[in-house]
Amino acid sequence: MTELTRSPLAPANFPDLRPVAGVRLAAAEANIRYRRTDVMLVELDAGTTVAGVLTKSQTAAAPVDWCRAILPNGVARALIVNSGNANAFTGYAGVRAVATATAAVGQAIGCRADEIYVASTGVIGEEMPVDRLIDVVPDLKATLSPGNWQAAAEAIRTTDTYAKGAGTTFQLDGKPYVLNGIAKGSGMIAPDMATMLGFLFTDATLPAPILQACLVRANQTSFNAITVDSDTSTSDTVLLFATGATELSGGAKHGPIEHGPIENASDSRLRGFKKALGTVMTDLAHQIVRDGEGASKFVAVTVTGAASKKAARRIALSVAESPLVKTAIAGEDPNWGRIVMAVGKAGERADRDKLSIKFGSVVVAEQGVVAPGYVEADAAEHMKRNEIEITIDVGVGRSRFTVWTCDLTAEYIRINADYRT
Amino acid sequence: MTELTRSPLAPANFPDLRPVAGVRLAAAEANIRYRRTDVMLVELDAGTTVAGVLTKSQTAAAPVDWCRAILPNGVARALIVNSGNANAFTGYAGVRAVATATAAVGQAIGCRADEIYVASTGVIGEEMPVDRLIDVVPDLKATLSPGNWQAAAEAIRTTDTYAKGAGTTFQLDGKPYVLNGIAKGSGMIAPDMATMLGFLFTDATLPAPILQACLVRANQTSFNAITVDSDTSTSDTVLLFATGATELSGGAKHGPIEHGPIENASDSRLRGFKKALGTVMTDLAHQIVRDGEGASKFVAVTVTGAASKKAARRIALSVAESPLVKTAIAGEDPNWGRIVMAVGKAGERADRDKLSIKFGSVVVAEQGVVAPGYVEADAAEHMKRNEIEITIDVGVGRSRFTVWTCDLTAEYIRINADYRT
Repeated sequence: MTELTRSPLAPANFPDLRPVAGVRLAAAEANIRYRRTDVMLVELDAGTTVAGVLTKSQTAAAPVDWCRAILPNGVARALIVNSGNANAFTGYAGVRAVATATAAVGQAIGCRADEIYVASTGVIGEEMPVDRLIDVVPDLKATLSPGNWQAAAEAIRTTDTYAKGAGTTFQLDGKPYVLNGIAKGSGMIAPDMATMLGFLFTDATLPAPILQACLVRANQTSFNAITVDSDTSTSDTVLLFATGATELSGGAKHGPIEHGPIENASDSRLRGFKKALGTVMTDLAHQIVRDGEGASKFVAVTVTGAASKKAARRIALSVAESPLVKTAIAGEDPNWGRIVMAVGKAGERADRDKLSIKFGSVVVAEQGVVAPGYVEADAAEHMKRNEIEITIDVGVGRSRFTVWTCDLTAEYIRINADYRT
Repeated sequence: MTELTRSPLAPANFPDLRPVAGVRLAAAEANIRYRRTDVMLVELDAGTTVAGVLTKSQTAAAPVDWCRAILPNGVARALIVNSGNANAFTGYAGVRAVATATAAVGQAIGCRADEIYVASTGVIGEEMPVDRLIDVVPDLKATLSPGNWQAAAEAIRTTDTYAKGAGTTFQLDGKPYVLNGIAKGSGMIAPDMATMLGFLFTDATLPAPILQACLVRANQTSFNAITVDSDTSTSDTVLLFATGATELSGGAKHGPIEHGPIENASDSRLRGFKKALGTVMTDLAHQIVRDGEGASKFVAVTVTGAASKKAARRIALSVAESPLVKTAIAGEDPNWGRIVMAVGKAGERADRDKLSIKFGSVVVAEQGVVAPGYVEADAAEHMKRNEIEITIDVGVGRSRFTVWTCDLTAEYIRINADYRT
């Protein structure tokens, strides 16, 4: 399996991430499918709370079922993730594989199985070689370190062309905290899925229900606002962990809670945390789109003037998912007729005779017809850029939403039509 | 503008269509965009009834608005259709163009404007050069003939690589009748839309509300059961005309009504008509898919065991529209993992642990895991064929639905990413 060329839209480097108190990471080579690091383990201090958003697929993988079952407990001590095999559509063998993995990690870390989160990404329908995974658990345990962010992000890649990380700091009740995240996605070479995994870690002390509310909200405008090819995986998983730890040296030791207790999700002291969460999740979401197979353009589609935020999102997604719009962008063609079509098919209210469309700052259409003085060469100039902005006002209300996507190129077909073997 | 190579999935010939009493057709070169025949006129005997199904697009073209406005009258005397310009997103100029065209045709035929149906397919957002169209109306009028089916079908093509027609005969109340149809679709080279036009003609005598009920029903399992790239046009139009005429020589003269009056859509004497309508519409729908841009495979996706027909349709469409499934088919890859994914994302009830999947007659998966004894080479053999059958049982009920699509190839991207000029 050859590595793909790094996406031309990739950021220059993996970011320099600060340690997060209570979080230690490790990566190892288990040879599940790839000949490189393919398993990561994260150990979390006792007392860590957790929130999660999981795929809505009706054919979800065994690890997703497992996470969904233990999330109501709201506590976590470890996260183990492998690439190369999705442990999806594997029947009872898949459930057994999760049980085997969590038992092994529980023994190594010294915690209950239902405090261990599991995610798998890769081939569907092949039995998970879980023995290879448990063989490396002692190694993983021995090499846990607060600085291993990039190694962890590398290990969860499937056909991602680069490891994805983002981090920031924020203030809570006047005290400084860290929020880091790693993610994988959009590398969907046959027969891997468009699986999106995202893991977020903070050292703040936040009850699970508050984490959950913040995660769901931030997810709407980040991971739920991107689309590469409209396909939804059996394994999509986003988890947010809050350790409440103050000592970087690790172990189960806990420092005092530094900030005052937070008891509801609308507490104004959470503003910094919410903003940090939005920033890190949006950064990771953009990195996923920038690694869309065959992508040559990063595209922001903003819909304004919609009847509701939900309507704005549906219209923006309709444009961002249209193969005709995406191929036109690949061809650097300011083909606004296709945008009119995609707005029309979204099924949401739009006033055809008030519709306006911009490529970058170039007004292409307004009041439902070509803008007076529109010169196609101006829009064509914008289409030559790496980053394309399409803004559509549908003329019926005041709501807006932005969706990010990439173009649809012949390279996408080449990658995905290649036979698996 | 060069002609595209005829699709490898095209039928050998345009069929030999019988005349339909009360229907006369003509085609002409108006030079709207193409340097070939690009306008067709159909004259219908007085007394012709009509039914229609129109795009649900919120940004529908002016001719669609026109047809929607006059359909409640239920009567028709003419149909004029042009290719090359969709008269969509053209504001008041678009409405004026329809008024100008219907006035000219009305004068030539000797009927009211609101008895004249109009459809346009082609470029969006460019003003319709309606003068060129009205210039050829006298020529069209002069060359009307009951045998011009292929000429009419040729004139409504945009980037279709072949003209599409189908016809059959049926019995009503023991008397013989004819049903013919012509269609265009799926030729979507930039910046034309995925516009689907379908026009059906019979010499039976049927009230408009009964025609409408039969059309809506047949449409569900024909034109509404195909997808090339999930894009919906601003101009999709299907019209069904029933002349009730008995004399082929034309004019406004009418023979006697031969069959007894039909007063409701569930009259058992309509069985032959309904079957004929289903046959002709499904034939045309298949021809559209076979002309999908870049298509190299014709694919039937059948979902069985669903909770309802609607659920079966949504799941089948989810599979048929998935870029990952369609690229796998292009690569002749029996990638059933992607089918599991597409079933899962449909949002309809499916029992993951009872799911079964077949490629042709090869059982790939059953009871939610790989079938015992499944050998990938067998499925790979089926994938090499021109016509692929995918059958999925979702294990929760008794409903079924079939959707037809084509594969997604690099040629599709090439066609659609090409710059317009």
